[in-house]
Amino acid sequence: MAGKLLLVVEYKGTNYRGFQLQKRAPTIQGELEKALYKLTQEKIRVTGASRTDSGVHARGQVVTFGTRSELGTATFVSGLNYYLPADIAVREPRWVSEDFDPRRNAQSRDYQYSILNRATPSPMVNDYSYLVRGDLDIRAMNEAGARLIGEHDFVSFASRLGTQIKNTVRTVHRAEMVREEDMIIFHMSARSFLPHQVRNTVGTLIRVGKGKMTLDEFCSIIEMKKPGLAGPAVPAGGLCLIRVNYPG
Amino acid sequence: MAGKLLLVVEYKGTNYRGFQLQKRAPTIQGELEKALYKLTQEKIRVTGASRTDSGVHARGQVVTFGTRSELGTATFVSGLNYYLPADIAVREPRWVSEDFDPRRNAQSRDYQYSILNRATPSPMVNDYSYLVRGDLDIRAMNEAGARLIGEHDFVSFASRLGTQIKNTVRTVHRAEMVREEDMIIFHMSARSFLPHQVRNTVGTLIRVGKGKMTLDEFCSIIEMKKPGLAGPAVPAGGLCLIRVNYPG
Repeated sequence: MAGKLLLVVEYKGTNYRGFQLQKRAPTIQGELEKALYKLTQEKIRVTGASRTDSGVHARGQVVTFGTRSELGTATFVSGLNYYLPADIAVREPRWVSEDFDPRRNAQSRDYQYSILNRATPSPMVNDYSYLVRGDLDIRAMNEAGARLIGEHDFVSFASRLGTQIKNTVRTVHRAEMVREEDMIIFHMSARSFLPHQVRNTVGTLIRVGKGKMTLDEFCSIIEMKKPGLAGPAVPAGGLCLIRVNYPG
Repeated sequence: MAGKLLLVVEYKGTNYRGFQLQKRAPTIQGELEKALYKLTQEKIRVTGASRTDSGVHARGQVVTFGTRSELGTATFVSGLNYYLPADIAVREPRWVSEDFDPRRNAQSRDYQYSILNRATPSPMVNDYSYLVRGDLDIRAMNEAGARLIGEHDFVSFASRLGTQIKNTVRTVHRAEMVREEDMIIFHMSARSFLPHQVRNTVGTLIRVGKGKMTLDEFCSIIEMKKPGLAGPAVPAGGLCLIRVNYPG
């Protein structure tokens, strides 16, 4: 059955230069398109819901693509997982209408940033977390995080804005640190994000958690609307796109 | 303060030929001894509580070694973590008495084996789990696992016994599958284990879980006392040494 197919994609981003296709570097989109070619002999262009950065992981990226192939959904999944490298896998196939756009139709994106908060590194989660030694005041971080909820101009939390992004107003649904033993997971959800917004937010909140920035100073970063004011951005390895939500 | 130092060691075993020193292959012991030499200029021999196999991980391996160094415990930890590769790290240093033996003094060892039980691979946990597709009857697996509790001759569950191991009687404290969403964690604790005992146990229990082996057949494997009868051994990557327990 030819048409437009949607797939959920999980990947370990460590060895990729992000989602979006690049000519001379390995990317998630590039690997998906190579595997699709091997499976279908078609030159297929893949659209992703989020352009995750170099080194960022995904448990629930969403992609769509058009195909003239008559393969069934189960064959698409098993065939792609056969051809894809071990650090990328697809699941949950479903045919969608031609006008479905995984980027524009997304209602919200859920990200998690993992902070390992202890004195020594943890090799088993090294690729998936960022080590921060010393006490972090979770309550202060969450008081600051709460100020991000709702519709704001988040230009201060963006890096590399370029000329493409004109509107820097975004709507944040959740911005919350949750401690799980010696890991602190930052949950951040929004309809969409500015470049590096999550990582700059975490970097700023860590300054709050260490007592190096007051709540007032945090709020003034939002109010001053100056690109690059927040941060520093924390490393990519701690970030993971958990889920993209669609209506219905 | 020179003496005998104990350290807890965590490692991602994927790129190592197990714990024990080998001349021509990277091992955890080898990396620890190299880092100790860089830190102290002493040729130090390290003793580990468990000789984990090639590719097996540890969150709580325990090692000891004698040193004439006057460095403090905090310097040992930070210095070793500086010199060690990123997939090995030490923590929780403490001086122990000269007659302390991390292997003989251990009361029990807790292992976990992670089975990813779903239709498609999960790249983020690929290195730490074993994918088993299709339904697994956890209740049947745990009924069988319960038969392992207590003191038994586990020779049927051993591989590569060689000539060193004369006594194949072991005492198992726990052998239990616990489902956590699409991951099934097998918890197994014993004073000590035979070679490949955990992995052969998991392989056999998976046969039970798939309905390919009855509880009676499982029990007869124990009773027949024939090396290599259990299994097949599941891959090393799913196995992790969680903790070594000592009196007091």
